[in-house]
This record gives sequence, structure tokens and C-alpha cells, in this order.
Amino acid sequence: MAPDGRLAGWRARTEAFLADRLPSEAEGPGHLHAAMRYAVLGDGKRLRPLLVYAAAHAVATVDDDGLAALDHAAAAVELIHAYSLVHDDLPAMDDDALRRGRPTVHVAFDHATAILAGDALQAEAFALLADAPAPAARIVAALALLADAAGSRGMCGGQAIDMAATGRMPDLDALAAMHAMKTGALIAASVRLGGLVVGADAATMATLADLGARIGLAFQIKDDLLDAEADSATLGKTAGKDAAQGKSTYVTLLGLDGARARLEAVAGGIEAALARLPSGGNSNGQALSDLAVMAVRRER
Amino acid sequence: MAPDGRLAGWRARTEAFLADRLPSEAEGPGHLHAAMRYAVLGDGKRLRPLLVYAAAHAVATVDDDGLAALDHAAAAVELIHAYSLVHDDLPAMDDDALRRGRPTVHVAFDHATAILAGDALQAEAFALLADAPAPAARIVAALALLADAAGSRGMCGGQAIDMAATGRMPDLDALAAMHAMKTGALIAASVRLGGLVVGADAATMATLADLGARIGLAFQIKDDLLDAEADSATLGKTAGKDAAQGKSTYVTLLGLDGARARLEAVAGGIEAALARLPSGGNSNGQALSDLAVMAVRRER
Repeated sequence: MAPDGRLAGWRARTEAFLADRLPSEAEGPGHLHAAMRYAVLGDGKRLRPLLVYAAAHAVATVDDDGLAALDHAAAAVELIHAYSLVHDDLPAMDDDALRRGRPTVHVAFDHATAILAGDALQAEAFALLADAPAPAARIVAALALLADAAGSRGMCGGQAIDMAATGRMPDLDALAAMHAMKTGALIAASVRLGGLVVGADAATMATLADLGARIGLAFQIKDDLLDAEADSATLGKTAGKDAAQGKSTYVTLLGLDGARARLEAVAGGIEAALARLPSGGNSNGQALSDLAVMAVRRER
Repeated sequence: MAPDGRLAGWRARTEAFLADRLPSEAEGPGHLHAAMRYAVLGDGKRLRPLLVYAAAHAVATVDDDGLAALDHAAAAVELIHAYSLVHDDLPAMDDDALRRGRPTVHVAFDHATAILAGDALQAEAFALLADAPAPAARIVAALALLADAAGSRGMCGGQAIDMAATGRMPDLDALAAMHAMKTGALIAASVRLGGLVVGADAATMATLADLGARIGLAFQIKDDLLDAEADSATLGKTAGKDAAQGKSTYVTLLGLDGARARLEAVAGGIEAALARLPSGGNSNGQALSDLAVMAVRRER
């Protein structure tokens, strides 16, 4: 089946919206605004914004007003993701000088500007969501959801656990719990935000939450597999840089075959959740299904 | 006139609320939650939360529901303030090892934890505000106000300008613009949040915005005066550490007498704004008036 053509349109839409809404470099403080734009614009999978649009279209008929509200939610979740990358790359954190082939923000600008750009991007995420053209009660619920996913019980908490463990997790449960917070919370929030903004009912919201958690888990297992497999193929080693760094991954804890089997089991759960949505089996849900397949089958 | 007895009550109230709502150290990740609590609890003027409560009481009759909503707004603004101090103290920023006589967060914990604690406190601020028991439309407006005040056009932007200028401002206008963003935006937002949460009308909101900006300005001029005067008295020098560091301040740009005269002019504007409030001249406005006097007359 051909990939859903709506995905490319939504990607262009979210990138145009972000470019339009992020403060211009011409507005002071110009270097801060330049750093914010550098961190967000340019290359990126835009997985989280696409999940927002796709989830909404899988559970409701979206009119122009609804689409405009989704623009705000999709941009907000991408800004949270972008700020987290800026801070995670800092020397005191993962100390990365390159991201997607470009110098990281603290290298391209400076350390203080990277800290402040991340901080300002987080504030901007909530500003954009608060400004969404949707019923106030939905916006409040969306803001609460995003703030919880971003905070110490979500993304920040997962990163703190990962840093404290220096990558070593005692067992699979601890690894899964860490990833569910570090990356899973925001991916799941993206799926839920899509439903929330278009007013999905409680049963549908529960299915989206379940689906979002499974997509986040699949994404991480696949990440670990790609790391191990890429190195195995290109370097002739049996394990990749995660193993070399002594990091616990699904592959180090389960083995390659074990991790692959686990991924297939999660993929089965994703299919079952997709089938329970109002769009189960029809074309409205294809974009969301495509994104889930992408999380499971992607090559990078 | 004796200080308004409500201030001590509100201070105790906001501190109890923060202690109750911040995640416990017993909940994982414990070290992150410990750092968040360390950054927020303990000593502090609590100026911003007090402004929230006082502004609300100056413009409306506040019932128990209103007071509960103010708890959330007051705590949210204090969390934004607290996170900004954690990040400003980092080595890449102001590099301070002590704050209020205690080791700063990156010293008491570690650098990565300080970055993450600041990030998580910002998210928690928006989570608490989104959870306020108030009409959804007011919460959305409050969230938009707080996010704008915290972002690149407010607090983060002011800090970026200050860092880029390494403290040197070409003239008074540039200094005032920087402070209006760096500290003024959040102080003004506190005053406006109080009115917003209790449903103040547009004219009252405009007066509160004007008043908040003036209180922020008075606070900063007094800060500069205290720095210069304290050193003059204790060290026998004609100027304090701001001047020693080559920083532009109201004192270096206007001189001691000039800065004092400027402060008195701002104090006059504050009194005039207070008189225009619904509480102008009656006891409902005393707490807000007391806080303004404190900003102008404080000794530390």
C-alpha cells in the first residue's frame, strides 16, 4: 500500500507553521532567536507533530478550524522535543557536538545561549498551545497533558534516570520504565493530543493512550536494533556503540533475536489498538498506521 | 501603618502549597525531585506569589474557590522564578556557587541535575497553572500570560541580552529594556495574574499591568542602589561590586542621587496606579501597597 499522501502535507504544514511562529532573528535578542530557529528548523523526522495530525484524523472528521488548532498542538510538541535535544546535547549532559550532521546549538552558538534557547523554546511551546483556536477546556486539558509529559514524571525524569544510571539499567523493567518516561511520554502525548484537540471521547482517548505508549516502545526497541545491526553490518562486530559504551539496551538485555521478537510482539499490539479506533480498517486511519509502521520498520 | 497581616498568611500558604505539590524525594527519580525541592523550598522573599495574592485581593472579593485558584497561579510564578535562578547560577551563565547562603543546585547536586531540575520546574509551573480550579478561559489566558513573560520576549530574552552585553549597557534605555524583560516581565505578570484569576475587567487589568511594570522597575533601581550603598558603607568605596565588575546599573548611569531621584519618581507612579484600582485608598489594597513600598524601601 502506498504511504498516506497526507503525511507529506502535514510535514510541510508544521514546518511552515514553526517557521512563521518562532520569533524572527530580526527581533531582539537576535542571537537567542537565531539559536531557537536553528534548533527547530531544518532537518527532522517531525514524528511527533505527524502523530498529532494523524491521530486526530484517525478519530474525527477534521474541519479547517480543527486543523488550525492541530497546528498549534503539533508545533508545541515539536518545540518540547527540540528544546530537550538542545539541553541533552550540552557538555554536562550527553556532550554531543553534532546532531543530524550539523554542529549542536552550544557549538554553533555558545553554552549560555544553548541553555537559554532551550528554556525559551519550552516556554514558547506552552505559549503556542495556549494560543490554539480551540475550546478553552480542551486547551487546558492539552496543556496539562503536555506539561506532565515534559516534566519530572515524564521526559525530564527519564533523562535524569538515564544520566544517573550512566546508561546501565539493572533489568528490562528498569530500562522500559526509563524509556517510557524519556521518549515514550512525549510520543504518547503526541498521539493523545491529536485526539484531545478534536474532542475524542473517553474510550477513544484510552485507546490512543495505549497506542501511543506502544508506538513509543516500538520506536525505542527499533532504535536499539538499528544501533546494533548497523554496526554489525558495517564494522563486522556483533554489537554496536551502545554495547561499546556499556549501555543497557533491548539488544544487550534480550539479544538480537530476542529484541526482534519483542518488537514484533509490540507491533501486534499496535495493530490491535489501531483496529479498535473509530477508523479501524478504513482509510482515515492510514496515516496513523503508516507512522506506526515507520516506527517499527524504519531503516534509520 | 502596620504591615498588612495577610501577607504572612499568604507566604505560609504558598510555601505549604509548593511543599505539598512538588513531587516527593521518595518518588523516583528521587535525586531530581530532591533538587527541585531544594531549589524552591527554604528561604525566599516570595515576592512574586505575594503579588499574585495581593493584586487579586486589591481588585476583587476573593472567596475560597478564588483563593484555591490563586494558590496555583502564585506557585506557578514562583516555580518559573526558581527555575530561572537554577539556570542563571550555572557555570556557563553567572557561575554562582552560593545563593542565599546555600550552595547552588549544580554545586549541591551536579550540573546535569541542575539543568534537568530547572527544565522540570518550568514544566511543573505550567502543569500547576493548568490544574487551577478556575474557569477554563481564565486559565488559558493566565497560561498565555505566564508563557510570554517567561519566554524569549520576556525573562529568557532579558537574560540573553544581559549575557551578550556582559553587563554593559550602552545607555539607560537599553538597561531599562533589558531589566523590563529579565526581571520586570515576571513581576508584572505576577500582578496581572492575580487580577486575571479573579476575573478583573479590562480597565483594571490595564492598571495592574501598568502597576506591575512600575513595581518591577522600582525593584531593579533599588537593587542597584542597595549594591552601591552597601559597599559604600561597609567597604568605604564609592561604588559596589556592580561597578567593580564593569556592569551598567542605574547608579553607574545616573549616579547615586540620580538613581534615588528616579526611584522616587517611580514610587510616585506606583502610588498613582494604586489609587486608580477599585481598592484605591481602602484596606483591600493595603497588601499590594505594602509590597510596592517593600520594593522601594527594602533594606536587602
